[in-house]
Amino acid sequence: MGRALLGAVAESADFEIAAALVRSGSEAATLPIADVSFVTRPPADALVDAVVDFSGPRGFDSALGIALERGVALVSGSTGLTAAQHAALQSASRSIPVLWAANFSPGIAVLGHLVAEAARLLPDWDCEILEAHHRLKLDAPSGTALMLGDRVNQARGTVAGKPLVERSGLRDVGQVGYSVIRGGDIVGEHDVRLIGFGERIELAHRATNRNLFARGALVAARWMSGRPAGSYTMADVLGLGTH
Amino acid sequence: MGRALLGAVAESADFEIAAALVRSGSEAATLPIADVSFVTRPPADALVDAVVDFSGPRGFDSALGIALERGVALVSGSTGLTAAQHAALQSASRSIPVLWAANFSPGIAVLGHLVAEAARLLPDWDCEILEAHHRLKLDAPSGTALMLGDRVNQARGTVAGKPLVERSGLRDVGQVGYSVIRGGDIVGEHDVRLIGFGERIELAHRATNRNLFARGALVAARWMSGRPAGSYTMADVLGLGTH
Amino acid sequence: MGRALLGAVAESADFEIAAALVRSGSEAATLPIADVSFVTRPPADALVDAVVDFSGPRGFDSALGIALERGVALVSGSTGLTAAQHAALQSASRSIPVLWAANFSPGIAVLGHLVAEAARLLPDWDCEILEAHHRLKLDAPSGTALMLGDRVNQARGTVAGKPLVERSGLRDVGQVGYSVIRGGDIVGEHDVRLIGFGERIELAHRATNRNLFARGALVAARWMSGRPAGSYTMADVLGLGTH
Amino acid sequence: MGRALLGAVAESADFEIAAALVRSGSEAATLPIADVSFVTRPPADALVDAVVDFSGPRGFDSALGIALERGVALVSGSTGLTAAQHAALQSASRSIPVLWAANFSPGIAVLGHLVAEAARLLPDWDCEILEAHHRLKLDAPSGTALMLGDRVNQARGTVAGKPLVERSGLRDVGQVGYSVIRGGDIVGEHDVRLIGFGERIELAHRATNRNLFARGALVAARWMSGRPAGSYTMADVLGLGTH
Repeated sequence: MGRALLGAVAESADFEIAAALVRSGSEAATLPIADVSFVTRPPADALVDAVVDFSGPRGFDSALGIALERGVALVSGSTGLTAAQHAALQSASRSIPVLWAANFSPGIAVLGHLVAEAARLLPDWDCEILEAHHRLKLDAPSGTALMLGDRVNQARGTVAGKPLVERSGLRDVGQVGYSVIRGGDIVGEHDVRLIGFGERIELAHRATNRNLFARGALVAARWMSGRPAGSYTMADVLGLGTH
Repeated sequence: MGRALLGAVAESADFEIAAALVRSGSEAATLPIADVSFVTRPPADALVDAVVDFSGPRGFDSALGIALERGVALVSGSTGLTAAQHAALQSASRSIPVLWAANFSPGIAVLGHLVAEAARLLPDWDCEILEAHHRLKLDAPSGTALMLGDRVNQARGTVAGKPLVERSGLRDVGQVGYSVIRGGDIVGEHDVRLIGFGERIELAHRATNRNLFARGALVAARWMSGRPAGSYTMADVLGLGTH
Repeated sequence: MGRALLGAVAESADFEIAAALVRSGSEAATLPIADVSFVTRPPADALVDAVVDFSGPRGFDSALGIALERGVALVSGSTGLTAAQHAALQSASRSIPVLWAANFSPGIAVLGHLVAEAARLLPDWDCEILEAHHRLKLDAPSGTALMLGDRVNQARGTVAGKPLVERSGLRDVGQVGYSVIRGGDIVGEHDVRLIGFGERIELAHRATNRNLFARGALVAARWMSGRPAGSYTMADVLGLGTH
Repeated sequence: MGRALLGAVAESADFEIAAALVRSGSEAATLPIADVSFVTRPPADALVDAVVDFSGPRGFDSALGIALERGVALVSGSTGLTAAQHAALQSASRSIPVLWAANFSPGIAVLGHLVAEAARLLPDWDCEILEAHHRLKLDAPSGTALMLGDRVNQARGTVAGKPLVERSGLRDVGQVGYSVIRGGDIVGEHDVRLIGFGERIELAHRATNRNLFARGALVAARWMSGRPAGSYTMADVLGLGTH
């Protein structure tokens, strides 16, 4: 994701890399990329408007510390954070704007909103969620598929049981069903089906390029820069927050 | 559609046929269907809560007249009405509740709402609409596809040109594109694609059984029965009207 | 299926019902259908070219007996037959032409052929099979999905393990994966995906009307009528047998 | 495509770049890529097993000349060649093995074969071909879509008219229909639908990464290296040639 972020910045008209943060001794620090200095802390004279973090649990504390020190926005896609790290993020939101998300694709944020609307308006239609990812992905169903199922359940006031993947006997009407596809190098596809009688609705998102997650993080950083302190979501960034 | 309505009523728990209206001399009047009398006007003692009309321009005036006389709701799916007939419908809405729709599928009404939301939230994504119908359908793109395209344009404030089906040279960014598939006995499928960079969203409706249009008309009739006078839409029936 | 067969015959130009066979005391025998006599055995003077059977284990013996007696073809879609009944069918194939199939859709027979070709030509691509059926279907994956997976394994010389539906950890490369969707009144859909790197192939069949199974049985009966004694398959009927 | 080829070679276990050919004065010649020398002609001592050419009409003659001089295979994906260049390729095939293709995706070659089989086996089903590409693609329908339509027509012995994209009035049964989608950065998708009554078959290919075309060219080069002189196709490379 670090490389993808550098690429997304290079493509953009209004971003500049103040500093590319790496851990001490990282091999990345030796990459010969024009106009980018790899450092463990931004130089004192660097102008920083936002800190974007995809470093994971080991780098998160440092990224949050820098954002707090500078009094600027933190946008983080680090997964696997500890409870203490999530709590630190919440505390920080009292003094700086922070946004954490598992998926920075604008399309997925919009899909979540549409799925909630559809589930609310068609409460009796059976819901099935398919997700497809590359052959090396270990967890199933994907976190995004489970998030979409949660949107359905919240919209309908349903209490979800264990995710319904394995099938035998009669379908438990009212539960969201999940299907998992693994193969090749599929970046990520999610397909939510609401199935009625004589008709159905299919709401799908297809990601074909991992770079979109980097671009989504920049969209978030642009929106966050200069906001009041607080905790924000991709739904806020995309104007979905008021629905 | 008359037969489909009789079937939908037979399946339902809370509807009864007060009278099956046919034109004078119709062959349908001789169909041996239990508990259904085919007449040109409902008997004076029949209890009528709503008039459901799919008769087309020739039967519409009679259906509207009966609804007005009885002071009950009119639900009409008659297409090809004259301007005078549409005007008569508007006039009638001052004394009775009326609802006219080209498509009574609940799923299509919901899809229209979702498409408008998606187009508003992703204003720069290219929009393409596919529709597939049986090999005998004459008009193209379908009225429902054009309605979906209008929802996109309204949500974005775009002025639409001639529907973009034939392609040559560079795509006119901002215009909705349409694709038309005709084959076999496809009941009706609509697929709205919003295409970004590295990702896309596909919002589709598949109708597999014509009876769903009859069931949709009954859903409308149930909701309309006892409403105040006025002109209503399927969006109102389905609670989409306030968005 | 009996009604669907009567409908398919009525639609056809070259079939006539010699006799509609029902069990003694069946309610169906009282249906007022023009030109159709419901009987437990065909009248002695009826001209019979083929016996088409969808009666299940209880009616199968009678149907086979009539075909043998008349020396005509038997086309059977009866499922749940006992081993003894399957053996009787094999014996009968020494004196009359017989065809038994779980699925009479011409499209599914063709799909099976295409899937085998694709699996053979792309031996390293991951294979995933999705199937979708109505919410009341009890078994999963469907028999047709398993048949399609068998075609993949045969084409590749793979020994199949237990069907892979539930997912956890790393995908077992080489095994066919299955996904199951249940909802509404879906007639039957099968989607075989061969997934490579940077590309994939999707081979799908969608059934939208149960009547196609009746029409497929008539196609089989037309082809079988007058054949030499033997055991035939839908692949033979459709000219897929030589591949 | 040059960069994509270098990447595909770097990923492979059994290929080495003997020389990366560029035109005199090309900027590419200054790219600092380890172990790759950019030259206008391979050094005399370079071991060359095959020449892979995506240079277009300006570089094609040079590539062909080198292959002839060395007596090795030529694999070319250069489009826009003149008639004289195509004739030179045919002449060359008397002394060296040559392969020219518009699309090096293995999946598309397999899809073409499957589409021909399906069209032959289901001669009466309506055929519609959808293709989707990025918003900047100028020609429509795509060359690959037209190739797939040709496979259908050849399999059925149909004489094709002008490609059917624009629709009005009754569908011309027997003609292949085409649909064109343009948006975002879609790499290339082709979807061939054979539509019957109550059922249909959908045969689709999705390309998600341009690198697959480079990998396909290497598959061809590996297979071509050491063949007898002659003109070969991707169908030969993939073992589709005997059907």
